[in-house]
Amino acid sequence: MSTTITRVTARDIRFPTSKSLDGSDAMNATSDYSATYVTLETDSSLGLQGHGLTFTIGRGNELCVEAVKSLAKLFVVGRTLEDITANFGAYWHEIVAGDCQLRWVGPEKGVIHLATAAIINAIWDLWAKQAGKPVWKLLVDMSPEELVRCVDFTYLTDVLTPEEAIALLRRVEPGKAAREREMLEQGFPGYTTAAGWLGYSEEKMRTLARAAVADGWTHLKQKVGADIEQDLRRARILREELGWDRKLMMDANQTWDVDQAVENMRKLAAFDPWWIEEPTSPDDVLGHAEIRRRIHPIGVATGEHAHNRVMFKQFFQAKAFDFCQLDPARLGGLNEVLAVVLMAAKFGVPVCPHGGGVGLCQYSQNIVLFDYIAVAASLENRVLEYVDHLHENFVEPIVIRRGRYMPPKLPGYSVTMKEQSLDRFAYPHGAEWIS
Amino acid sequence: MSTTITRVTARDIRFPTSKSLDGSDAMNATSDYSATYVTLETDSSLGLQGHGLTFTIGRGNELCVEAVKSLAKLFVVGRTLEDITANFGAYWHEIVAGDCQLRWVGPEKGVIHLATAAIINAIWDLWAKQAGKPVWKLLVDMSPEELVRCVDFTYLTDVLTPEEAIALLRRVEPGKAAREREMLEQGFPGYTTAAGWLGYSEEKMRTLARAAVADGWTHLKQKVGADIEQDLRRARILREELGWDRKLMMDANQTWDVDQAVENMRKLAAFDPWWIEEPTSPDDVLGHAEIRRRIHPIGVATGEHAHNRVMFKQFFQAKAFDFCQLDPARLGGLNEVLAVVLMAAKFGVPVCPHGGGVGLCQYSQNIVLFDYIAVAASLENRVLEYVDHLHENFVEPIVIRRGRYMPPKLPGYSVTMKEQSLDRFAYPHGAEWIS
Repeated sequence: MSTTITRVTARDIRFPTSKSLDGSDAMNATSDYSATYVTLETDSSLGLQGHGLTFTIGRGNELCVEAVKSLAKLFVVGRTLEDITANFGAYWHEIVAGDCQLRWVGPEKGVIHLATAAIINAIWDLWAKQAGKPVWKLLVDMSPEELVRCVDFTYLTDVLTPEEAIALLRRVEPGKAAREREMLEQGFPGYTTAAGWLGYSEEKMRTLARAAVADGWTHLKQKVGADIEQDLRRARILREELGWDRKLMMDANQTWDVDQAVENMRKLAAFDPWWIEEPTSPDDVLGHAEIRRRIHPIGVATGEHAHNRVMFKQFFQAKAFDFCQLDPARLGGLNEVLAVVLMAAKFGVPVCPHGGGVGLCQYSQNIVLFDYIAVAASLENRVLEYVDHLHENFVEPIVIRRGRYMPPKLPGYSVTMKEQSLDRFAYPHGAEWIS
Repeated sequence: MSTTITRVTARDIRFPTSKSLDGSDAMNATSDYSATYVTLETDSSLGLQGHGLTFTIGRGNELCVEAVKSLAKLFVVGRTLEDITANFGAYWHEIVAGDCQLRWVGPEKGVIHLATAAIINAIWDLWAKQAGKPVWKLLVDMSPEELVRCVDFTYLTDVLTPEEAIALLRRVEPGKAAREREMLEQGFPGYTTAAGWLGYSEEKMRTLARAAVADGWTHLKQKVGADIEQDLRRARILREELGWDRKLMMDANQTWDVDQAVENMRKLAAFDPWWIEEPTSPDDVLGHAEIRRRIHPIGVATGEHAHNRVMFKQFFQAKAFDFCQLDPARLGGLNEVLAVVLMAAKFGVPVCPHGGGVGLCQYSQNIVLFDYIAVAASLENRVLEYVDHLHENFVEPIVIRRGRYMPPKLPGYSVTMKEQSLDRFAYPHGAEWIS
């Protein structure tokens, strides 16, 4: 008995977050958090569907929707889940490189790769739903060989081979069951960006930071990069509220050149930042390495805009970051995430995936649980971003308890949205947009 | 008196080149050479228009067309040419970073950046037409300060500042007039890929190579990467036809992993290749550097898929290539090309832009003429790709004399297509596609 994907739909879903300046930073002043929302319909008698999304911030989402349609016609409709997952790494290679014409407009980057992520993640969602498990558990229950079969090692073999990856996974198998129980009881450590948006007033920021401390958060992130005097003022406020034992992170959202990043972080060092995130261009591996050398011991974090495994390979090789912030929907879906997680384990760099946006926390909770239980086997320097927006639109919203992510329980990849939300926020004809 | 851009159109133009396997290589077996063709209409009483294109190979072109429309609405319609060109570097920054929402689906890469190239190059075409000069001459006649004002130095200042760029340009000013005369008389050296396509039989390859030698070509490129035994066999044929004094280049079109590239090139070294092009992932700066170290003295060439100036900055910093093959329409148009040309001069790396496809030779002839006359002032190791397809569709097709590009004469950026070609190859409703 096999499950055939009979139809693929892609919906343009946009939330008007720019109205409240939620999510505002030095690069992204007015974002409408958006999703290219993919549904895989199947011939399953149970009505099984797969849901995946890619995250954008408004305009441009229409391009990802069109790209999903172009890919789906060639690679998805008419395929069976069993055929795809039997050699998922090979299928992933097919979708990113199997049509040279579509590959050309990436390759493996930008619109076409964002669209790939939505489709691939929808397939994982479908697979997990069929298996009756959340994705993190589906992964945890796989053998090293099964996991490695999901990975395309093209362009990676100079740093990681399938055999090495299997050995890495095998090494930590003994403690898996105990770590799974630990996560189910205690959850995975999170951090909050909720107080730190650049569009918020300093008063609002202080109030939110105070509330975050009261809620048990031990790590808080501040947006910087528009004006250094403002950054210093806000860091002072946050330190007043956090004290010096809690961690303060900073995020410049790509606004600085290399020397400027060093100069500004030397000023902000007075407030003991744990990391500076996206200090410069996301493509600048060597620039990040240079900044990292010059601002030590402040850590460098980046990755939410690193577009594929080849970029991450170089971040690892060049010792360009201290925290690997892969994005579950900018990488080409979970298969490529697995490749990066495995490289991170080899290079000993903690994975702290991108949260925030819409749906990213939903995805990323699965990734960190899997990484801790089955790959990294350590919580050292590992925290998952938490942003308190739009969760009400998901069928199973994330659950935070005293600053920790509690594992999702429903089958799938945790991004299935409520039908009423999909209708209301459909762009441009949903109720939210025509009013 | 100013010229206002009143309307922007983007047309999906596709040539069915896959029928003849023209342009076939190890990665791109069946390409339909295509263009997202942009026309800027103006209020000029002379009926002045600007034309630009981005090159794709078929499917996916529809995404670039849509992206042009999204960008044009925000940044092009209603603007004056004078306002744009007064501070063209700042305008370029605005189009790539001024709308955070559209930036997100790149940033500065993939579909949105390809679309940016088409628009930006159309503006250069318009500017040059208004000035009554081909683009190479428009550039040559600018002062160093005027040229540098066209460049956005964001993310580049750790390796090149505007002041340094001006000094670089100033240094070679004395010989400019003589080099311009030289080019007008003798043209710029080219090389041909016409014989080397992977889809051609070995017999056809030999015939074409023999003809190329007879036509005066001194450099010829072979496609490799599908099968090493075939590559070796074909290299032998080409050496038989070329002899050992002419240069033989090889192009793997991204098909190898790092170690595999080294291994294969050590075998192909017997045929004395001048360069290996795109041996691995176009994003893998450090991989190219590693390959280069290990296959010396064979040169490494890459860049046609390097998506922005930040990638090129790193290729220069890491000493990852011997030949900088920037692409005039994958970079975000001529402003970004200028940034890369200036960095190349600083690092002493020859620029051999990507030709081939449709329209790329047309663009690139302007770039190499400008580079030689006003920036690099050297012809050493500099050759421009020539591919003998589709030239008949342009108003002023490139002119080759004994293996050298003769400078274009008509005002503009040389990519204006004939109206009848635009009609015939319009996808999907042009005569070529409905028959």
